[in-house]
Amino acid sequence: MRIYPECIPCFFRQGLVTASKATDDREKLIEVMLLIAERLPELVKLPTPTHAGKFIHSIPRRMWGIYDPYKQDKERFIKMMLDMYPRIKVWVGDNLQRALKVAASGNAIDFATLGEDRIMAELQDIGEREFKRMEYDRFVEELKNSKMLLYLADNAGETVFDKLLIEVLKLHYPQIEILYAVRGYPTINDAVYEDAIASGIDEVAKIIDSGCEAPGIILEDCNEGFRKIFYSSDIIISKGQGNFEALSEVKAPIYFLLQIKCDPVARYMGMEVGSLLFFRTSNG
Amino acid sequence: MRIYPECIPCFFRQGLVTASKATDDREKLIEVMLLIAERLPELVKLPTPTHAGKFIHSIPRRMWGIYDPYKQDKERFIKMMLDMYPRIKVWVGDNLQRALKVAASGNAIDFATLGEDRIMAELQDIGEREFKRMEYDRFVEELKNSKMLLYLADNAGETVFDKLLIEVLKLHYPQIEILYAVRGYPTINDAVYEDAIASGIDEVAKIIDSGCEAPGIILEDCNEGFRKIFYSSDIIISKGQGNFEALSEVKAPIYFLLQIKCDPVARYMGMEVGSLLFFRTSNG
Repeated sequence: MRIYPECIPCFFRQGLVTASKATDDREKLIEVMLLIAERLPELVKLPTPTHAGKFIHSIPRRMWGIYDPYKQDKERFIKMMLDMYPRIKVWVGDNLQRALKVAASGNAIDFATLGEDRIMAELQDIGEREFKRMEYDRFVEELKNSKMLLYLADNAGETVFDKLLIEVLKLHYPQIEILYAVRGYPTINDAVYEDAIASGIDEVAKIIDSGCEAPGIILEDCNEGFRKIFYSSDIIISKGQGNFEALSEVKAPIYFLLQIKCDPVARYMGMEVGSLLFFRTSNG
Repeated sequence: MRIYPECIPCFFRQGLVTASKATDDREKLIEVMLLIAERLPELVKLPTPTHAGKFIHSIPRRMWGIYDPYKQDKERFIKMMLDMYPRIKVWVGDNLQRALKVAASGNAIDFATLGEDRIMAELQDIGEREFKRMEYDRFVEELKNSKMLLYLADNAGETVFDKLLIEVLKLHYPQIEILYAVRGYPTINDAVYEDAIASGIDEVAKIIDSGCEAPGIILEDCNEGFRKIFYSSDIIISKGQGNFEALSEVKAPIYFLLQIKCDPVARYMGMEVGSLLFFRTSNG
């Protein structure tokens, strides 16, 4: 998905929110804003908003050596989701559609687009919500003939609900090998290796490192091992907006599982902000 | 009030919203974003956000010769408020506190900070709302000894409720000459001369042109005639955030009448977003 004009104020907002996790010094925060402004002529030429996000969310690391500004937020959300996990597991049972809904709703945990109050409100009513687009039958059909499934993680915290979905998938399709890909470097609150471990993903899938530093899978940035897996997987589940923005025009058997969180994605999809979606890309 | 880091994403957002009133062409809108980015190093050094707003909201005029991008919005809101006026006038009667509340609530009509749905919601419950800070007694005391009152207008539409407040003021203090100052050039949806006329202000006060192009009174930009009136007025009513940001540290007998619409102003005031305020500056 290309960069829309509305993405630009959001680049500055995201840059500020992320930098504010590392410092509250006015001059330093203004310096970050000026750096994004200076780089803006290059950023707007990038192919997707995710490419710009890679630069924006790396600023605290590049400027101040702060490796993972969202570390505490991520730990807190993983803990909260682990506390909710047993109750939600009972509700899901072996129901794959419910597991998909839980995993999509967990996608609300996104500091780039929503505040913490909104995130908790979204999570409260998981059971009530319906998919606005849901290609379940085709998914089940493809699962039957799949041997390798690649699961592209998004935010830390929803990782706990990813685990639940993977458990239900394994129950119904024990023949499928499931690989769970995390970011290579911290970016926003996206899951890295240790977040996946803290969420218990290692109990249900093999965790792999995409090598990607962006808040979405930019294939040309990923390591060779990841790319091989990407192109040889029978089916790919891609979580969240960042992965969608980066992969929406890639040719591969991708099912996107996400919640729409901003106007540009809503417009691109012809849907409303807040919609839960599970659909297969028309490419590949 | 100085520029806060949070003002910077808002500069881009405001620039985009204003430019979008003039065009929906992606390349042109991105050009506007790049222009603001290029000027950002100068903008962040300006003394108040209003100074930056002056540049940002003049872009459609400077780039494309579009004099007043909010003209239709302003006309629509003035018409809506004129339709509400008789009903609200009955509720206000000769009650000066109610008239102040109506004039402050009308300050919700601000496209720089709120969307249209929020604006209408704010206007629905005028009667329910209370001032979080209200220096009424001191105001009444000062009115008794005043001969000249300068009223600094803000958004078109709330001008209709300004008229109502001026009517009640004239009823109780017929000795006071009231001057109503509008912007010298269109900026956001702020009232210019013809908006004040369309709101009926000429029936109750003398309308003067501040000469100012910014979305708030920047004294050094105003014409000499306005500045003379500003410094010789016994009492000044300043409507809205833009005028507050620009005048918060100016030495003059100013009563600020506004609704807080963003975090930086809330923080500067030590109050919450959404608060209605009527208070005298501690300067002068």
